[in-house]
Amino acid sequence: MTSVHLSLEQAHALAMNCLQVSGCDEANARAAADSMILAEGDLCHAHGLFRLPWYAAGVKSGRANGKANPRVEQLAPAVIRVDGDGGFAPLGQQIAHQPLVDCARNNGIAAVAFVNMFHIAAMWPEVEKLAMEGLCAFAFTSSYPYVAPAGGIKPLFGTNPMGFAWPRRNAPPLVFDQASASMARGEIQIAAREGHSVPETAGIGPDGETTTDPKVVLKGAQLGFGGYKGASLAMMVELLAGAMIGEFLSIESAQDDAGKGGPPKGGELIMALDPAKFGDPDGFLAHGEKLFEAILEQEGTRLPGARRFENRQKTAETGIEIPQSLHQTILELL
Amino acid sequence: MTSVHLSLEQAHALAMNCLQVSGCDEANARAAADSMILAEGDLCHAHGLFRLPWYAAGVKSGRANGKANPRVEQLAPAVIRVDGDGGFAPLGQQIAHQPLVDCARNNGIAAVAFVNMFHIAAMWPEVEKLAMEGLCAFAFTSSYPYVAPAGGIKPLFGTNPMGFAWPRRNAPPLVFDQASASMARGEIQIAAREGHSVPETAGIGPDGETTTDPKVVLKGAQLGFGGYKGASLAMMVELLAGAMIGEFLSIESAQDDAGKGGPPKGGELIMALDPAKFGDPDGFLAHGEKLFEAILEQEGTRLPGARRFENRQKTAETGIEIPQSLHQTILELL
Repeated sequence: MTSVHLSLEQAHALAMNCLQVSGCDEANARAAADSMILAEGDLCHAHGLFRLPWYAAGVKSGRANGKANPRVEQLAPAVIRVDGDGGFAPLGQQIAHQPLVDCARNNGIAAVAFVNMFHIAAMWPEVEKLAMEGLCAFAFTSSYPYVAPAGGIKPLFGTNPMGFAWPRRNAPPLVFDQASASMARGEIQIAAREGHSVPETAGIGPDGETTTDPKVVLKGAQLGFGGYKGASLAMMVELLAGAMIGEFLSIESAQDDAGKGGPPKGGELIMALDPAKFGDPDGFLAHGEKLFEAILEQEGTRLPGARRFENRQKTAETGIEIPQSLHQTILELL
Repeated sequence: MTSVHLSLEQAHALAMNCLQVSGCDEANARAAADSMILAEGDLCHAHGLFRLPWYAAGVKSGRANGKANPRVEQLAPAVIRVDGDGGFAPLGQQIAHQPLVDCARNNGIAAVAFVNMFHIAAMWPEVEKLAMEGLCAFAFTSSYPYVAPAGGIKPLFGTNPMGFAWPRRNAPPLVFDQASASMARGEIQIAAREGHSVPETAGIGPDGETTTDPKVVLKGAQLGFGGYKGASLAMMVELLAGAMIGEFLSIESAQDDAGKGGPPKGGELIMALDPAKFGDPDGFLAHGEKLFEAILEQEGTRLPGARRFENRQKTAETGIEIPQSLHQTILELL
């Protein structure tokens, strides 16, 4: 595959340019570009510039508000709501960060419900940022109906990731961000584009048949990881990021889109806990490290997120490679 | 397998008797018996009387306090701690219930950290009880090192269940309670006792070898569900129910036990969210039902927890069957 080399600054400028040409104002374009280029720098291409045409289409079609002005509201002593004003998630998330940190520190635990926005970014940037403040954090979001419920064969749940982060001492946070689906949608799309097969656990065909062809899975349904247990988590995410906060379920988001294209509109729930308020303020960090040491003592292990932080250090100097075809697609959007 | 028939009242009296003979006072015995017989009534035998000899051994050996007097303390506006006084979890959980409900209703979200207790019961009773109050709830606990970290082969994490519940309208709550391990420890023990095989995903042998023999898995390590993703969840539970709240990691619990036998000492974290405080107080229940209807429309599906509630209705009339061998073991403890 032919690729194009870009510095992170070039990649960011390309994303900004494309988003602004598509109809985003500077603040909205910058927040979305920050999010995509953070992913590119971490070498998580499925959340990087690969998403840019989708963002652009969302704004161009008028489905997403490129000039969104997110508003923060306190719903209860430990609950905040952010109305994303129909824009993309990253700007609302940036605005919600400090109020959530303060609320979690004051109460020990707090939550923020994001509504009225389009979420197609990774979850780890938000939880990682909270863990860098010394907090433990969870994030949940739903998307479009892609995953079959346990026992069923038709797509109903989003891939519904859950992000989790834990603060570390003298090290980047422990962070994982994993789809409730066996495989991330973006990875299946990339496999389809590049002609690779996917594991049988990734999904089923339209009639429930077993397959390793990503194109058949994309026409059928994805499966939860570990079978019914992953499907339970996907269902939980629908409740948390949809029903509980008054936002779309994945099936409602698809109805709302009605084939117009562009990213899914929906909600996100983030919970932040201040470990210093849970009874062991002086011990919790060292205690976490004790666990991580025991993990790393075993050959073949690594901590979730560690590779991303290594990549981040490297790409800050070396820049990144993106497929020629993707680069061409982006240039055509300018 | 020869079995013995018992009414729920007889089963409860048998458990109470056994626990009191072993050294529990009435309050501690009753709370533990309530928990075990609720599980038996739901036909979840792995959390039922099967656990009774383990409870009894824990009190007899002096490891667990059969006369525990749990104490409740407010650590932050939305965080409660319960010191279990070295007893079994069910009594502390009963005592924590109302303060947690009040705290969640006042703040929108709240958490309770249980320390200094022995947790070997199922997680669903606590989250189900919270959902019956209209709350959404999570529960996490660790145990002994049984599960290998991703990429490793030695047991390090507990099976580390997560319980989740969501309130329903005119129906019992939606409840799931699933181990981060691919299979519950109790189920593997039952398979070993009864001579059944287990799926290859359940665990590995002492040298990391593939096996379907539950006895080999019990000597080796269990695996997370869906591979590394389940292992990530198991690690998360160690942090939440251990490091964050100043309680044992599973590896520390095993060191504390030092081969004395009896149940694992450790912590538990419960989070309760009041969905009525998340922006859609009048809509969230109906919105959840919309999701459940879409699930149940598909042939072959059912809601997590539904079978337990059906069993509960049935066994209230019919009583339960327990293996003759288990009944004999219990009688010998009296």
